[in-house]
Amino acid sequence: MSRESFTVVGGGPVGTLLAILLARRGYEVGLYEGRPDSRRTSLYEGRSINIALSDRGWTSLEKIGIGDDARERAIPMTHRAVHGVGGDVAALPYGREGDAIWSVSRSGINEHLLDVADAEPNIAMQFGHRLIDVDFETATTTFWVNNTGKVVVGADYAFGADGAHSKVRRLAHDLPRFSYSQTCMPQSYIELNIPANADGTHKLETNALHIWPRKDFMLIALPNADGTFTCTLFLNYSGDPSFESLQERPDVEAFFEANFPDAMDCLEEPVDAFLAKTPSPLFLVRVFPWSFNRKVGLIGDAAHAIVPFYGQGMNCGFEDCAELDALIAAHDHDWDRIFPAYENARKPNGDAIAELSRRNFVEMSELSGDRLFRLRKMIEAKFSRRHPDLWTPLYSMVTFSPDVPYSEALRVGDEQNRVMEKIMAMPGIEEDWDDEKLMERLFSLASETLGDRQ
Amino acid sequence: MSRESFTVVGGGPVGTLLAILLARRGYEVGLYEGRPDSRRTSLYEGRSINIALSDRGWTSLEKIGIGDDARERAIPMTHRAVHGVGGDVAALPYGREGDAIWSVSRSGINEHLLDVADAEPNIAMQFGHRLIDVDFETATTTFWVNNTGKVVVGADYAFGADGAHSKVRRLAHDLPRFSYSQTCMPQSYIELNIPANADGTHKLETNALHIWPRKDFMLIALPNADGTFTCTLFLNYSGDPSFESLQERPDVEAFFEANFPDAMDCLEEPVDAFLAKTPSPLFLVRVFPWSFNRKVGLIGDAAHAIVPFYGQGMNCGFEDCAELDALIAAHDHDWDRIFPAYENARKPNGDAIAELSRRNFVEMSELSGDRLFRLRKMIEAKFSRRHPDLWTPLYSMVTFSPDVPYSEALRVGDEQNRVMEKIMAMPGIEEDWDDEKLMERLFSLASETLGDRQ
Repeated sequence: MSRESFTVVGGGPVGTLLAILLARRGYEVGLYEGRPDSRRTSLYEGRSINIALSDRGWTSLEKIGIGDDARERAIPMTHRAVHGVGGDVAALPYGREGDAIWSVSRSGINEHLLDVADAEPNIAMQFGHRLIDVDFETATTTFWVNNTGKVVVGADYAFGADGAHSKVRRLAHDLPRFSYSQTCMPQSYIELNIPANADGTHKLETNALHIWPRKDFMLIALPNADGTFTCTLFLNYSGDPSFESLQERPDVEAFFEANFPDAMDCLEEPVDAFLAKTPSPLFLVRVFPWSFNRKVGLIGDAAHAIVPFYGQGMNCGFEDCAELDALIAAHDHDWDRIFPAYENARKPNGDAIAELSRRNFVEMSELSGDRLFRLRKMIEAKFSRRHPDLWTPLYSMVTFSPDVPYSEALRVGDEQNRVMEKIMAMPGIEEDWDDEKLMERLFSLASETLGDRQ
Repeated sequence: MSRESFTVVGGGPVGTLLAILLARRGYEVGLYEGRPDSRRTSLYEGRSINIALSDRGWTSLEKIGIGDDARERAIPMTHRAVHGVGGDVAALPYGREGDAIWSVSRSGINEHLLDVADAEPNIAMQFGHRLIDVDFETATTTFWVNNTGKVVVGADYAFGADGAHSKVRRLAHDLPRFSYSQTCMPQSYIELNIPANADGTHKLETNALHIWPRKDFMLIALPNADGTFTCTLFLNYSGDPSFESLQERPDVEAFFEANFPDAMDCLEEPVDAFLAKTPSPLFLVRVFPWSFNRKVGLIGDAAHAIVPFYGQGMNCGFEDCAELDALIAAHDHDWDRIFPAYENARKPNGDAIAELSRRNFVEMSELSGDRLFRLRKMIEAKFSRRHPDLWTPLYSMVTFSPDVPYSEALRVGDEQNRVMEKIMAMPGIEEDWDDEKLMERLFSLASETLGDRQ
């Protein structure tokens, strides 16, 4: 095989993983990142964004041999800790015994991957290279470098792994027959911080994702290894209450005290932070195709930016990389076949996780605080333990079942939903939920609906 | 009232009409067009694009006093002339006796409006000004002018009326909380020509929109005042048959001869044209909001590019202008109220005509060639003549009923569809369609479904 070359635009977690996989398949890879190298600057010092890594993500990290290493730096979250307005906390397990999603530092994972990439002889990394143009016919890319000017890079192929605001994707807007959409959510968000105790321990339960569900808005907190929590407040941009309506200090104080009284004991100056920070918008991006002229592709958030409510953004991007890698082998490096196979395989899954993530806002911000919803989860969990071949709860399919494509999880989840609606409509369900007859009824409904397909 | 100022970007039909309406409301208007003035160049000489103008468009032209003038230059089309593969032609009336849609030259209407704008003392027109930037906070616009360079224009407000490829809209992509989508259709199109007879008469029936419906593709022809027809071939971009699959002259010849044998007698070198021309893509654009910071708005195709299958693109753009004009009066020049009222009123109608236009491809390219579909149209027409208060066919609501909003037409049309499906499912419908009992049944179904709402 002649050694072909790739330009990967974007040195975030997805771009770096892609570069490593391509290099190990024998390609010459140029990895270009617009920002400086975070390992050599203070870019990521102070508060770090953290994200939930689950089985799809781990599968990819294990593929390149850093699963165990990465797991040592991550914190398992076995359940949601749901905080009521009165300070009560309910635990909702994420899955079966031993299942967990993992709180990892985005910069930590990124730098870990960059270190692996550094050790690959086929990868040349360049930081401070801001993309300004792509020739979609030739895969030639042009970057702007401070103090140097324009740098033109030739390669056989290129990938845009440059995230939700992808410049590669935005340049593709001008191509004929490219369909794209960006849909803004009503919510925006800001990040808040819960500092560690003086002894370095966590102020809240460590192995949980904390949620303060308040229907139209919510606060969440994910643990960091240094004893802190990174919190995110999701709130409508306009309306009441909203970032627009809460402009005055007394209003913001009243809002926090009324809605998050227990969190107020541990949050670090939330009112100051609220007043000082500019809320970030949340948006979904859908595009098609994901490749152009069989020369330039899109991957990760660049192809399918989603909302963060299922904690699947990076997991899905890593899965894109793993599936592309498998297609390189399956199609023996023939990119005329790999590009269409890649986009046709991944597009339905990108659409499905986008839809699932959007729906999950309601589940997190409203239903997780609802007694009947929690009861339903308990019934599903019990039934799933008893009939694991017949019923894997939707959350577990998405999060703990990397062999189930997102699109399949969405389809089966909708069927499960119809079954559970019938169960929850049964008279006396709140009293009889642990009854053996209920399990029998559920078995009969589930077998009928799902039995021959799962 | 202090005289406020507007920049209108785009001197096409919609931008020019908007400029005239704003000027007549007392605003200072700068009208900026990227191309040279077509009245002083050969830009529009030779073949011209023509479009179908119907009652919504006429209402707006009458509002500025040029309805009669424009009508003299237009050709009424009272029916569809549907050409079968065997050369047979069926006539499908567009509405009741006296109803017609009008074939007008796009450049003719545009130049007519530009002449009116020239006569308005409050309008300053500039051609050759290509928009390069918009400040969405201040409504300041920047244009590029050959041999001059950048020109910065200040105004109190600005409107992007710069068409389906709107630069104003594309610049707005970078604003937070802007939702946008561009959806490509599988079809692309090229224009073909039918020349006039030696004596200047039309080679096909003059007062008809000619359709050669072939299911996955179709040819249409609209009459021009000079005896020619402008034809459009809509065909998939890829697949079989498609612009991609038809690359060789013998294949193209065979395609035309098999599908359009009667048109081949009058088309001007269609095979040469097919091989020489680059097909244009068809796409839908949906965005929201249609205004930014109550300073900059979008109007016409810039806000809602649609596919041409309902002949409503320019009509809808003109209606946007007329409704905005009415809101200026209703809200007494208070643009903090006019912008939100405008986008909230027009967005549902833009979405509705987008959907109706997309659906109409099937009606034109497939159903218009279908015997049962034509029968259904006859039944609807007969019933509508008898009960005009109860039933206006969908096409007539969209085309001949400017008082019915597009969104209402879509809703009622869907209800009519359910009624007609029941009627067409009646046994023996093909024999008994003219039966009095059928009219009674239809009356009872229609009264039940639509009676209390229309």
